This record gives sequence, C-alpha cells and structure tokens, in this order.
Amino acid sequence: MKTKTKIPFEERPKGSTCVMWRYSQNPVIGRYHIPTSNSIFNSAVVPFEDGFAGVFRCDNKAVQMNIFAGFSKDGINWEINHDPIQMVPGNTEMIESAYKYDPRVTFIEDRFWVTWCNGYHGPTIGIAYTFDFKTFHQCENAFLPFNRNGVLFPEKINGKYAMLSRPSDNGHTPFGDIYISYSPDMKFWGEHRCVMKVTPFEKSAWQCTKIGAGSVPIKTTEGWLEFYHGVINTCNGFRYSMGAVLLDLENPAKVLHRTQPYLLAPAELYELTGDVPNVIFPCAALSDGEKIAVYYGAADTVVGMAFGYQQEIIDFIKKNSM
Amino acid sequence: MKTKTKIPFEERPKGSTCVMWRYSQNPVIGRYHIPTSNSIFNSAVVPFEDGFAGVFRCDNKAVQMNIFAGFSKDGINWEINHDPIQMVPGNTEMIESAYKYDPRVTFIEDRFWVTWCNGYHGPTIGIAYTFDFKTFHQCENAFLPFNRNGVLFPEKINGKYAMLSRPSDNGHTPFGDIYISYSPDMKFWGEHRCVMKVTPFEKSAWQCTKIGAGSVPIKTTEGWLEFYHGVINTCNGFRYSMGAVLLDLENPAKVLHRTQPYLLAPAELYELTGDVPNVIFPCAALSDGEKIAVYYGAADTVVGMAFGYQQEIIDFIKKNSM
Amino acid sequence: MKTKTKIPFEERPKGSTCVMWRYSQNPVIGRYHIPTSNSIFNSAVVPFEDGFAGVFRCDNKAVQMNIFAGFSKDGINWEINHDPIQMVPGNTEMIESAYKYDPRVTFIEDRFWVTWCNGYHGPTIGIAYTFDFKTFHQCENAFLPFNRNGVLFPEKINGKYAMLSRPSDNGHTPFGDIYISYSPDMKFWGEHRCVMKVTPFEKSAWQCTKIGAGSVPIKTTEGWLEFYHGVINTCNGFRYSMGAVLLDLENPAKVLHRTQPYLLAPAELYELTGDVPNVIFPCAALSDGEKIAVYYGAADTVVGMAFGYQQEIIDFIKKNSM
Amino acid sequence: MKTKTKIPFEERPKGSTCVMWRYSQNPVIGRYHIPTSNSIFNSAVVPFEDGFAGVFRCDNKAVQMNIFAGFSKDGINWEINHDPIQMVPGNTEMIESAYKYDPRVTFIEDRFWVTWCNGYHGPTIGIAYTFDFKTFHQCENAFLPFNRNGVLFPEKINGKYAMLSRPSDNGHTPFGDIYISYSPDMKFWGEHRCVMKVTPFEKSAWQCTKIGAGSVPIKTTEGWLEFYHGVINTCNGFRYSMGAVLLDLENPAKVLHRTQPYLLAPAELYELTGDVPNVIFPCAALSDGEKIAVYYGAADTVVGMAFGYQQEIIDFIKKNSM
Amino acid sequence: MKTKTKIPFEERPKGSTCVMWRYSQNPVIGRYHIPTSNSIFNSAVVPFEDGFAGVFRCDNKAVQMNIFAGFSKDGINWEINHDPIQMVPGNTEMIESAYKYDPRVTFIEDRFWVTWCNGYHGPTIGIAYTFDFKTFHQCENAFLPFNRNGVLFPEKINGKYAMLSRPSDNGHTPFGDIYISYSPDMKFWGEHRCVMKVTPFEKSAWQCTKIGAGSVPIKTTEGWLEFYHGVINTCNGFRYSMGAVLLDLENPAKVLHRTQPYLLAPAELYELTGDVPNVIFPCAALSDGEKIAVYYGAADTVVGMAFGYQQEIIDFIKKNSM
Amino acid sequence: MKTKTKIPFEERPKGSTCVMWRYSQNPVIGRYHIPTSNSIFNSAVVPFEDGFAGVFRCDNKAVQMNIFAGFSKDGINWEINHDPIQMVPGNTEMIESAYKYDPRVTFIEDRFWVTWCNGYHGPTIGIAYTFDFKTFHQCENAFLPFNRNGVLFPEKINGKYAMLSRPSDNGHTPFGDIYISYSPDMKFWGEHRCVMKVTPFEKSAWQCTKIGAGSVPIKTTEGWLEFYHGVINTCNGFRYSMGAVLLDLENPAKVLHRTQPYLLAPAELYELTGDVPNVIFPCAALSDGEKIAVYYGAADTVVGMAFGYQQEIIDFIKKNSM
Repeated sequence: MKTKTKIPFEERPKGSTCVMWRYSQNPVIGRYHIPTSNSIFNSAVVPFEDGFAGVFRCDNKAVQMNIFAGFSKDGINWEINHDPIQMVPGNTEMIESAYKYDPRVTFIEDRFWVTWCNGYHGPTIGIAYTFDFKTFHQCENAFLPFNRNGVLFPEKINGKYAMLSRPSDNGHTPFGDIYISYSPDMKFWGEHRCVMKVTPFEKSAWQCTKIGAGSVPIKTTEGWLEFYHGVINTCNGFRYSMGAVLLDLENPAKVLHRTQPYLLAPAELYELTGDVPNVIFPCAALSDGEKIAVYYGAADTVVGMAFGYQQEIIDFIKKNSM
Repeated sequence: MKTKTKIPFEERPKGSTCVMWRYSQNPVIGRYHIPTSNSIFNSAVVPFEDGFAGVFRCDNKAVQMNIFAGFSKDGINWEINHDPIQMVPGNTEMIESAYKYDPRVTFIEDRFWVTWCNGYHGPTIGIAYTFDFKTFHQCENAFLPFNRNGVLFPEKINGKYAMLSRPSDNGHTPFGDIYISYSPDMKFWGEHRCVMKVTPFEKSAWQCTKIGAGSVPIKTTEGWLEFYHGVINTCNGFRYSMGAVLLDLENPAKVLHRTQPYLLAPAELYELTGDVPNVIFPCAALSDGEKIAVYYGAADTVVGMAFGYQQEIIDFIKKNSM
Repeated sequence: MKTKTKIPFEERPKGSTCVMWRYSQNPVIGRYHIPTSNSIFNSAVVPFEDGFAGVFRCDNKAVQMNIFAGFSKDGINWEINHDPIQMVPGNTEMIESAYKYDPRVTFIEDRFWVTWCNGYHGPTIGIAYTFDFKTFHQCENAFLPFNRNGVLFPEKINGKYAMLSRPSDNGHTPFGDIYISYSPDMKFWGEHRCVMKVTPFEKSAWQCTKIGAGSVPIKTTEGWLEFYHGVINTCNGFRYSMGAVLLDLENPAKVLHRTQPYLLAPAELYELTGDVPNVIFPCAALSDGEKIAVYYGAADTVVGMAFGYQQEIIDFIKKNSM
Repeated sequence: MKTKTKIPFEERPKGSTCVMWRYSQNPVIGRYHIPTSNSIFNSAVVPFEDGFAGVFRCDNKAVQMNIFAGFSKDGINWEINHDPIQMVPGNTEMIESAYKYDPRVTFIEDRFWVTWCNGYHGPTIGIAYTFDFKTFHQCENAFLPFNRNGVLFPEKINGKYAMLSRPSDNGHTPFGDIYISYSPDMKFWGEHRCVMKVTPFEKSAWQCTKIGAGSVPIKTTEGWLEFYHGVINTCNGFRYSMGAVLLDLENPAKVLHRTQPYLLAPAELYELTGDVPNVIFPCAALSDGEKIAVYYGAADTVVGMAFGYQQEIIDFIKKNSM
Repeated sequence: MKTKTKIPFEERPKGSTCVMWRYSQNPVIGRYHIPTSNSIFNSAVVPFEDGFAGVFRCDNKAVQMNIFAGFSKDGINWEINHDPIQMVPGNTEMIESAYKYDPRVTFIEDRFWVTWCNGYHGPTIGIAYTFDFKTFHQCENAFLPFNRNGVLFPEKINGKYAMLSRPSDNGHTPFGDIYISYSPDMKFWGEHRCVMKVTPFEKSAWQCTKIGAGSVPIKTTEGWLEFYHGVINTCNGFRYSMGAVLLDLENPAKVLHRTQPYLLAPAELYELTGDVPNVIFPCAALSDGEKIAVYYGAADTVVGMAFGYQQEIIDFIKKNSM
Repeated sequence: MKTKTKIPFEERPKGSTCVMWRYSQNPVIGRYHIPTSNSIFNSAVVPFEDGFAGVFRCDNKAVQMNIFAGFSKDGINWEINHDPIQMVPGNTEMIESAYKYDPRVTFIEDRFWVTWCNGYHGPTIGIAYTFDFKTFHQCENAFLPFNRNGVLFPEKINGKYAMLSRPSDNGHTPFGDIYISYSPDMKFWGEHRCVMKVTPFEKSAWQCTKIGAGSVPIKTTEGWLEFYHGVINTCNGFRYSMGAVLLDLENPAKVLHRTQPYLLAPAELYELTGDVPNVIFPCAALSDGEKIAVYYGAADTVVGMAFGYQQEIIDFIKKNSM
C-alpha cells in the first residue's frame, strides 16, 4: 500500500547485493507480545492517521486462531489489543466464524477492508470493513469453502471490487493456484479467472507445490506489484518462501512478469524454527513509491520485516521473469 | 420438476412395500446408445413442448466427458444427439471447459437453465441457458473450483436465483456437504449457507462420507422435495445411494425432514457392475403432483428410472426423518 | 460346533474334487430377508433345542449395523426377528454400543455366549450371554478399542475362558494378525499371545494383508479346527477368502497346521457383487464329527453355506500346511 | 506376431461397427482350467510347430503367481501343463524369483524369448529363452527393480535387442509410462528412452493414470503395431482398457499414431467381475497379415480373445490419433 | 508423586506470569549423558530412599530403544546405568520385548511399578515391578497391541489397580484418546472406559490430534492431577505440548476440569530442534503438596524440567477449563 | 578415494571417544558461497593435480538443482564456478536433463567419472567423464527411472565397471535398498544384485526406512569401505544419518561387516535446521590410507566435514557389525 506516512525502513546491509533484505531487529513482534498469545504472525499493516494500524493473527495458548487490532507510530513498535476484534453485522446478519486467521487489510475509497481466512464449516474468505479499527462490520463470506489467502485490490477495477484467492481443501492443502474474482457490491462474487499456477519443479521448485497471494497489490506504472508465497514440499514438510509478480493494471488476471527465483526464503533461526519451521509468509507491504517494507510471518510464530527499493524490485522481477 | 405432460410411470410391483421402486425395463438408456458413447449416465430430463428434453452425460470411447441434448415423446425412449452441445457465449465471453459432466436442467421463468460440472482448472459449476435445446448460451461459472453437483431451484427465492452445490477437492473427494448460494443475476453469487452435512456413521452410514444434491427440487406444500445422493466409503470403494430431503420453502437452507434410511441403493446387476460399481446417482425428477419419476445414473454406465407417489415419499421422509 | 442335531448338508457336486463346496441353493439368506434389512451377512449359528438358533448381522436401510436373533428347524430356512436384540445388563452396568456387527455364538458350560464387534468409541469386542436367545445379558467389553473378530473357544482352557481376536485400527484396517487372550471370569482379560500372522506375499498371497478368526473352533483329536478369513489387497480393493488352521488343544496359541491354499474364495456372482464385492467371511461352523457346514457372509450382502467332511478338511490342512 | 499358421478368428458380429470385437465363446480359458489354478489370465501365445504354444499366468489356490507352458492346435482349445515352468540357467547362474507373472513370448532369430514380471526384491523383468517350450533357460533380469510389462520386439533393431517396459514402484503403482531399452546381448541394457506417456485426463481419460506395453509388436508397413493397456483411476479402483499405437520402424521410441479412444474396455460380465474387476489386459496378438487375434486377461481371472482386421485397426489408429 | 523428600525446584523467573516455568539449567540430562546414548528423553522419576530414582529412555546409537535405571540425590544431577534394565520373570514367563520406551514409574503399597511401551508385535504396555531399582520383575503385558502411554494410578481405586492408556495403531498414530482400565491382580485387565478425547480444532487446537497420559496422577483434594500431552498436526509435523486435567478421585473416568490452554509448549531451542522437533512430552511429576516438578522429554532428545505451585496449577485448570 | 595429496584433517577433539568427529570449522561451505546459490550441499571431492577438485550441488534461488565444478588447494577452502557444468556429448547424443543433483566423482584408469541424479522423466543416474573438470562428456543414463544415489567403484571389478545405486520412486521415496550393477562399457548395464537392505526397526532404527550409497568406496585390505546414509521416518519427517560398510573386494555384492550404530547423526545446529532439517548425507571420502575425511551435506543446505582414522573406522565396523 502506497502511503505518504514515512514508512519503516532500514538500508541494505553493507556488502549485500540482495534485492530485498531483512530488518536487523527482526523479529519485530515476538510470540508472547500480548499476555495470552502463543504466537503472532501472518499479520497485516496499513497507514492509519499519522501512523499505522494493523490486524494481527494472534493464536492464544489454547491455539485458537483470532485477529486483533494494533497500532504503531513507526510501524515497528506495536501496541496490540489484548482482546480479539469483536465484529458487528456488516452487509448481512452475523456469519459464523469458528476461527479467524491470516488477515489482510486495504483501504478502498472510504474505509478499510479486512479479509481473512474464516472458519465456516472449513476455511473460506471472511470480509469486514472498519473506519477506525475499533468497530468492524462483518460482511458475507466471499466464497464457499474451501478457500484461503483472499487479498483485495486497493481500488475497484472496471467498477468492481477484485479479490485474489486460493481455492484449497479442508486440510493442509498440498496444491493451490491464485485466482481472481470480482464483485459489484462486496456481497456477490463472480467472473472467476485463474491468474497464476504453480511452476514445474525443474523450473522453479520453491513455488512448485502451491502459491498464494500475500500483500495487498501495490499500484505501479508497470503493473500491480504483488508479493506472494510459494511452497515446496520437501521430504520433511512444506517450505514457504516469498516471490513477487507484476499483474496487468487493466486486467489483473494477466501476469506480466513473475519471479523465477524467490525474493526471500527461510534462513534465519526465527524462520527455521518455531511452531511451523521454514515459513516466510508475507501478508502486507508498505510503499512510499520508492521504498518498500514487507511484513511477513516467520515460522508461524513471529512477525518479521524485509525491505527493498520498489524500482529495484520491479527491475528484478522483469529481469528474472519466467 | 412438476409437469402437466403425462410423466413416465409404472405401478409398484406386486408384493412390494417399498416407497420407491425401479422401472422393470431398466436401464432405459444403455451405454452404447449413441455411436461414440462408452457410457451414458447421470443425466437430466425436463418436460419440453409436448414431450421431454434432456441433457445427457455421454462419455465417449476416449472417456472424454461431455453433455448432449436429447428428446423423447414419453420420457423413456430417447433420441440423443450424436454430437455434444456446442455452446455460444451467454452473459460473458466463452469460458474454458476442459470437460463437462453430470448435468441438471430446470426451467425458470422463460428459459431452461443447465448446470453441470465444468472443467476449469478443476471441477466447478458451469451454467448455460437455452430456449430450445438447440442453442445453448454458456454463462459465467458460478463458483471458484472445486465444486460439483450444482443444482438450481426452479424459481427465484426472495428475488434471487438459488443453487445447491457441494464444495469438493480436485480428486475423488472423500468428504462433502450441501450448501446453498444466491445470485441476483446468474453471474455473481454469494450468501453461501451450509444446508446439510454428512451423518454420523452410526446414525445413517449410507450417507456418512459425502452427500450431494441430485434432482432439481420439486415444490410441494410441505417444502422443497429434493432427491440427493449419499456415499459410504467401504473397504472396496464408494457406494452411492439415494435419499430425499424436505427443505423450507422460504428459507431452503433450513432442513425440515431428511431420510435416515435410503430410498434406493445399488442392488441390481446394472447398478452393481459397470465402469464404477455400486452407484445410484439421481440427477432429475419429474412430478405431476401425484406421481414421481426419478432418473438416475447407474454404475456410471447407464441410466435407470425409479418411481413413487409424491405424497407417499413425503410421508416416508417425515416418518423416517433424523 | 459339534452337535447331535442333524446338521444341514449337501453332498459334494459330481465331478468336484474340492475339499469344500458351496450349497447349491446359495445364498440361504437374502439381503431383504426381513422387512427393514439392506443386507444380512456375517452371521452365527448354533444348535439350539431341537433345531438351530442364530445371531444375524442385519444392516437396516439406514445402514445401521445391529444383531438379530433367529431360529430354524433345519439350519437353512430361517425366521429372523424383525427387531434387533435388546440387551439387559450382564456382569456390569450397560455398556455403550454405537453399533453391533459380525456376531459369533458359542455354548460354554451352561449358556450361550455371543461376541461381536461393538462400537465403543471405535470397534472393540462386545460380550453377552443368553440361555434362550430371548434375553441377552451384555457384559464388559473384552478389550480396549480397536479390535474385531473376537471368537470364544467353546470350553475353558486351563481353567480360563479363551478368545481369539484381531487388534485393528479405527478404519478399514490394512493389517491384522490373530491373537489369543484369557480370562478367569469373562470380565478381565490378559495373557495375550500372538497366534498367527499374515503370510509373505510370495508364499500365500490371499492371506498376506490381514487375517481374522471366523468360526468358533471345533475340537477334534488333531487340534482345534478353526476357519478363518484372509485378505489380499488388490489394486481394486480387499478380497476376503477362507482358510483353516489346526491349533494345539492344550496351548491354542500354538499353530499345528495352516492352509497355504484357501478353502473357498469369491467366485460366484453373489460373492463377486454386492455392497462389498469379493468377500467370503466365515462366522460359524457346525460339525457332527463327520460333516461340517460353514456359514459365511458373501459380499457383505447375503449369507452362504459351504460343506465338507471334517476328516478330509483336516487331512487337507495337514497336507497343504505352510 | 505374424504367422503362416491359420490364426483363430471369428467374423465381426452382425450389426457391429466396432473396429475390434470379442470372441463369442469368451472366456476361452476359465479360472479353473488346471486343477491347482485360482485364475488364469494375462498370458501369451505364439505360433509353434503346426499349432500354437503359450506361456500362461496361473495363480494357484494359495494365490502364488507362476507361469506355465501350454499347447493348442487352434489357439482356442488349450492344454496347459499342470506344473509351472522349471527354469535352467541361461546366460548366468540362477536368478532368484519370488514369483513370476504376466508373461510375453516372442520368436527372435532362432528361439523363443519369454519375458515376465519377476520377483527379485520387488517386481522387475525376467528373461528366458526356449527352443521347444519344454526347457527354459533363465537369463539375467533386464533391469533393476521396480519394473513391469517388459515386451521384446520380434527382431533386432539396429543390431540390438529392444524392449519396451514400464518403470513402476513396489506396490499398486499409480503412475506409469512406456520406455524402450536396448541390449547388444540380452544381458546388459541401456540407451533407455521414453516412448509414450499417460494422457491428460481431459484428452483421453481411460489412459490417464498409467499405461503399459501389451502384445509383442507386429511389424507392418506403417510401423510397429503395439496393443497396450491404459488405466484410469476411478473412485472405485483402477479400470484397465486396451488401445493401440504405431511406432516408427527404424526408431520405435518415436510414436507415429496412438489411439485416443480405446479399442476394448471392460463391459462383459467376465470383465466386470472377478478377482480384480474391470480389467482388460492384452498380452499377445497373432497376425497373419490380414486378421488379428488378441489374447487378453479379463478381471485378473480368465483369458478372453478379441479380433479385428489389421488394416482396419491401423486405419482406426491413424484416424483417431492424438 | 507426592513426596517428603525435598523436591527439585526453582522459583518463577522474575517478571513471569506463567503458571508453570522451565528450569533455567535445562536440559537437565543431555543426549550423550551415557556413553552409548543417542538421546535420553521421555523418562520417569520417583522419590527413592533419601533421594530419587528414575527409569530413563536412552536410545543408543543404533537407535535401539531401551530403558535404564538411574539415581540422583537432588533430582537434577543423575547417574544413569550404562546398561539397560535386565528383567527377570514377574507374574509370568518372560514376555518378548522387541523394544522398550517411554517409561513411567509409581510406588503402590510395597513396590515400584514400571510401565512402558513394550514391543510385542507392535507397541503395547509392558509392566514390571522392583523393590530396589536393581532387580526388575517383568509381568504380563496389560493389553493387546496397539497401545502407548500406559500410566498407573499410585494407589488402588475401589480395590483394583487402575491404568490410563491410549489405544494406538502400529505407526505414527494420527489419533488417540485416553482410556482407563482396571485390574484385580496386575495380570488381567478390564472395565475399560473412555476418559477424555481430543478437542475440536477451534476449541483447543494444540490437543486436537491426539492426547496421552503423561505423569503418574497426583492425588489432591480436588481430584487426581494428571499432566498429559496433546498434539496438533501442523503442515510440518506433530507438535507436542503439555496440559493438565483433574480427574474424579472416586471415579477417575470422570473429568472434572481440563486445561483449554496448554501449560507448556515447545519454544526453547532444545525443544524446537533435535531428533523430533517441537516436542514436550511429560512422563513424571514430583509434588511435595506445595511445589511441583515435572520431567519432560524435549524434542525426543533430552530431558527438561518445569516447575509450578500445585495450588496455582489447580486453580489455573479450574479457571481455564473447557 | 585414497590419495597422496595431503588430505584435510583435524585431530579428534580432546575428551572425545567417538570414532568419527566433525570439523570444528563446519560448515566448510555456506549456503550462499556463490552469488546465485540458495544452498550448497551433497557434493563430491577428489584429489586433482596438486590439490582437489569437486563437483558441487548448488541449488540456485529458483531452487533449480544443478552441479558446479570447484577447486581447492587444501580441500577446505573452495572456489566454486559461478556457472553450472555445461555438458558435451559423451558416448551418445545429448540426454535430456531436467535437473542434476547429488553428484559423486571418481577416477578410473584415465579419467574422472561423475555420476549424479539426473532428471529424465523422473530421477535416474546420469554419467559423465572429464579429464580436467572443464569439459564434461555426458554419457547414457545408467538405468531407467527411478533411481538415485548412483556411486561408481574406483576401479573395474572382474573387468567391468561397477555401480551401487538405490532404486526409488518418483517422489520422496519411503523405501530403498542398495543394489550393484555392472557394465562392460559404461553404456549398457546388467547383472543387477541386491547388496544390502534396510534393517528391522528394533535392530537398528536409524537405517530402517531407506539406505543409499554415499562416498566412492575406498579399497582397503579388509574390503571396500563404503560410507552410506540411513534414514528413519520419525513422526516429523525423515532423519538421515551416516554409517559404513565393508564389502567383499572380489564380489562387492557381499557384505562383510556393517555398522549397527551410526557413525554420525544430526546433532549440530547446521544439521538440525536448514532447508531440510536433520540430514547428514555423505557424498565423498578422502583417504591417505591412514586418515579419512568425509564430505557430507548438512540439512540440505551446507557442506560439512567429518574425520577419522581408517583403521579405527574399520575396527569399529567389524566390532559393531550386525
């Protein structure tokens, strides 16, 4: 999300030639950041007022998954509410929600929209809006189960809301491609199109098992810049890494360029160990048009940040596109 | 579907006390009914002009799945086109369709709507309309993959189209419940609700693995009468049987009564053997308000029929409801 | 079970050289033998008064599994109660029983004991006794879940009750060997020993996946004669056949001789097709010391019978032993 | 195999338009054709002296798999030895053989070569030669495990022996493509090339799970004519059908034409039921240059035959090629 | 186990509000504590003489699993025998034991009883007694395979020995609930009752896959205090955490209160990495009526300790009960 | 490989009694050792000119697997080429290679032979030779897919090249034994024999799931000394350890002695964490006749070294043999 607020940033480490790099103070949010939490990860951040607001996935010590609002002046030091978001009805009566996880947040026109993985007889995409991060209005689920990683575009496209998502199964889905769907009203969804699929193993193995949208797409002159995760199924489990893709501005079902190499893969101890080892899972990106800060869940346990220059990233995607 | 045309029917066999019984001349459509077919099954029939029209699943000898139009004076003797239905664009540009199977047909207001399992990067629900069973206009798929058994209600409910469906996975789905979704325009769908789920093994084992909507619901004074299939996973594979449910007329997400015993289960040789043994899979039901004729696929190979009296069936459902 | 009652029997078909052969009027009990039944199979028979009594597995049309008492003058023509057995407390308060299936019956000292697969948080071995096949007293389950095919010896061995059984899992168990356990009082069980295991694929493939005790053992001068089932896992599912074993009279954990070839394997249409194709599952054997009649479930749908001469069977086992 | 002996044949049934049709007296070899057999299927036949010889897969009643020699004057009425083939050493010391199944036979230069699935720490391809179908000389296995369906070409190609085979796993392999390998001496093999792979589901589903070579290829002016099996994985197990392919005479790794529709798929009761339902598995084809007779295993239980005219089959393949 | 010996303890870390906390010197026993060991974990400790004795699971460098006796003055610094326990016959001839792991120890009346997972054709519960931790008398296995986590109560209940256990399968059991069984004599077992089951995912995900008894229950005025492990199946494997439950003193099959949040979950490096990452597996608890010390296996590699105040723990269970 | 060059070595750490020990500066090659690499592991080293050459598995940041040449003066400090090896045709036209990984290198007679896991419609064994580590000549694949861990002996045996390998499947093979094959010409392979199999769980669990050849065998007076890997399937994935075996000099299909305990198992952080946790995977061993240096991949991420004295290792194998 492009913002006028000064976004959190740290320069590229000396000697590094990587197009993106980790924050030296990672993890920015620890697993016990609030009293009840077992882990805080896969969370979303947006500019809000003179700072930032976020919606955080905090699993409590019963390992119940829920989403919590939080606030920060600088995007790095966060105060997260100790109680999960309590929804009020939005465009429908209240929808069941056995659990909530992996939120994304975007501002469209006059309000903030939150999407998340909502437990309704299995995972699907929950939707809510808020003006103030205090009152959240829960709307109809976008889709039938089973779906995960629903991410809204930050503006209407051809007059309709647009959402990326990944059709899933009801377990640890061992497959998954990214689709786009449209809605005239945030209630009824259709015009579903396949956007991008997993890659052949020999072409780009880190994203050969499943992929899913990560951050809210950033509008650039070269297309929608989307950070996504890709998964390889090793003999010892899934490994989640981060790549990026440029989607056509007019028709975002059309992929312009997509990273063959990853941008970030698990390598630090807080990414290699934790409740689910070897996970980098981006859920938000801030951009001021020049610099970019990505928030990602690490090892399903903590929140990390990574930085880069927007133009360098775009150049990298184009140069390393499949 | 309730009709004024004389529906095909045969009286209950002497000595039988079953609430529904098979046609003595089953199967009514054999596997090689058209020159290219490997099997004809899971097909839908509606009253049309002074007889009946149907949309038939005919797998050819390459075992490509496609749907074919057919016509009959009496609902029993059928002429099925030798070429599959060629679609023209309906409410969108042409949608990909890697395969088409398991059609249902219903008349709403001014036209016939066909739904089927449409191959779009996996199975989902395809939609088309026709006025004459010659020209079919293909519309947007209702949902993201993976979905099967999409069945439209024969009239709008609270001003919206309504569809039953079963979220699935991309293989031989070993789970499955029935949901309802609504659409203002046959293009965008939402307001998804869970209607009915599989039963506990010890309560009704024939429907404990997965269930799926079968026929277009029949409007009765006691609710929408819906014939559905239920599946048990035996040590030698899935066994598909037929039951029925009464759904609330105003809010069809509400189950009024549902059969604990099945109405029909595989027992005849043409149901026990074939391309997929032990399958009874209803896809259409004709009703004149008194009598009912159900068309079902048998062993994924041929089409069979079963009969009953509507009021007896309703009484049976109510008396044997869980 | 050895009996003075004239046991049902039919001579070996002309030209046959098989050691055991099917009854020409098979199946003796059809799937719809009682009004509510979907299938009747895997059932047990014993001499009773001047004829025979039996406990029958009748799955009803909701495919709920339960056991029913039945009576016959000749062991072939049966009257089966239309209502399942209602238990009263035996040596404990009433045990939960989510389902009951695959009964065996034996007479020990002064009463008939029934064992069956009892649904108590998964399958385990239920036990009851009756004096008259009218009142059944349900006792403590023999074992923790998961277990199937519990078969009592017809007399105490070294002063203790003895039971064969097959430890299982909570699904379509793809493994299984036969164990023996002892009890001083039909309440507490111990001294568990492994009796016989599946065979290597290349040695006797029909019994290489799992085996389970079938009939109540028949006491002969050459050992306990036990008919059991063996299973091979083909690419299209499990296939159940029947073999026999001679166990040591004093220490029945010791196998004396065991059939390498099967005695009976699915080959007739009522064994090859049905709710679960390719199943022969013996649950009872009558012996008058000379002739033997075996009752077996066929295709999980009907009951069949097979005959043989006891000494010929014993000779066959010894000659064809592994 | 092209022969001057009058091959068994029966004209196309009246009214049939099929390119290949079944023998009206199928099955030609029943499951109990020899005293010890449980089933006889997947067997190979060649012209021999003034009639025919064959190598037959006869599973005995312990379901041990072995191969037996047999002889026939007319190719239809067979005398099969009651004892399995006893090998003597060929080009090596004796190789272990835990089991033998699915033989093929071909004549090259001066002798008959038998290949089969040989149990050597898992399935691989056994090789033997015979001059008289009395003495068989067992040679080195062609490959490391795991492999099945090894089929020799009836002459050397570019000076080397050539074999089709299907790399497998050690269970009910759920995948499988056809490869070719060459040998200068029937001992060392190399130059492995992939010949043909399974088809996409939507293009030809009957051969989308695995394929394997069937008959010894028949040399025609239009290429090597090879009958093969294709498998689809239905929700109730594998279904095996038969297709054909034309391979380049000079470079048989090159596919010229390949059937999109099947030539024969399970539809008769002896194909639909048996030890493994829904299997048609060709292992041999006789050709006199005009007529063709195919021997196939049905339901892993019996042997069936199918007929056709060679040119019609070739035309069909070319016309219906993918 | 409540003891008069001074139990090992360390005060709650400054700033901590956790009800239980780790020992600052964890792990107390390293993986190479004895010369042959690959790992030492899942071990049991009891007061003995003027200090403590224990039975330790030491896998050797062939990764053979066995149990070893050990002694300590303070419960923290241990001398473990270099040779595994050699059993002598107890209440039966010697039982086979292919392996021994995961011991528990309790004192009842006049002797110490050891239970462990005993390899007898699969895992089941082995039993032995000792008076001196030098001579161990092996008794009959409690149950048929497959079972794990057998834990005795420290006194007879209603005159009978009582044991918690978890019926399992023969692999990495992906399910599991806790049952209780009774024995009059430590030889025959019965009166099996289900005590507690896994929780719904949305209610308490850390214990939604399987649970198993851990420590010997501690008798308190508010019930039997039992520390148990719960498992969640993440996409990268099982994660084992620790909770606690209060069972009814008279009828321990009755759960009074049970923790919805865990008490301890893997978070330290020695818990997150090792032979099996992400495991906390309690096997023993010492109590002096006021303080509690829990011994747990960490990552299937080392032994850790955790502490708490008994009353606080009880209050926590009651306050956070499901 | 025995060499006159001074091999890299470090003395046994003080206090250690282990027969083999790690290099104190491990890992010797980090994951980002060349600019494009994601990880460098499972690599092979040989004496070359006055130092050492190697072939390295470097997965790039698209996680494409390829092999790279590298050079070192001391065997510890390496310069690895930044571009993968480009092959030229060897004894055939160019073979497809979708990927290359896990190389081994050996010198035979006049040249260096490289074997690796080559992607040809699945993994099989690729072969190439080089004289200078600049130009590599790719030869025919040794075997049909699916195979891994092909390791050549450093000299002909009985006049033929000899190769160890492990038949595999096309995924994360959960089984695997070591075979030997021979070739007169490095083109055609045969005379396949099983060398050694996985061990029973209770005998040596670390090698009970699969085993595979590691280093090029070292010729000693007591047999071929081969370092291999063994795998156990824990509930959280595969764990790879290293053992060693002595094979008969004349007939290397004959095992003389084989380690029951492992020589090295994952215990250091760089072995416990990484792209695939808990992996020690030896691919090369240098020997000067007295000292031995083993190169092993750690956690599929980096390269580690371990040292030992040859005679001590041989003594250990013989003393700890199964």
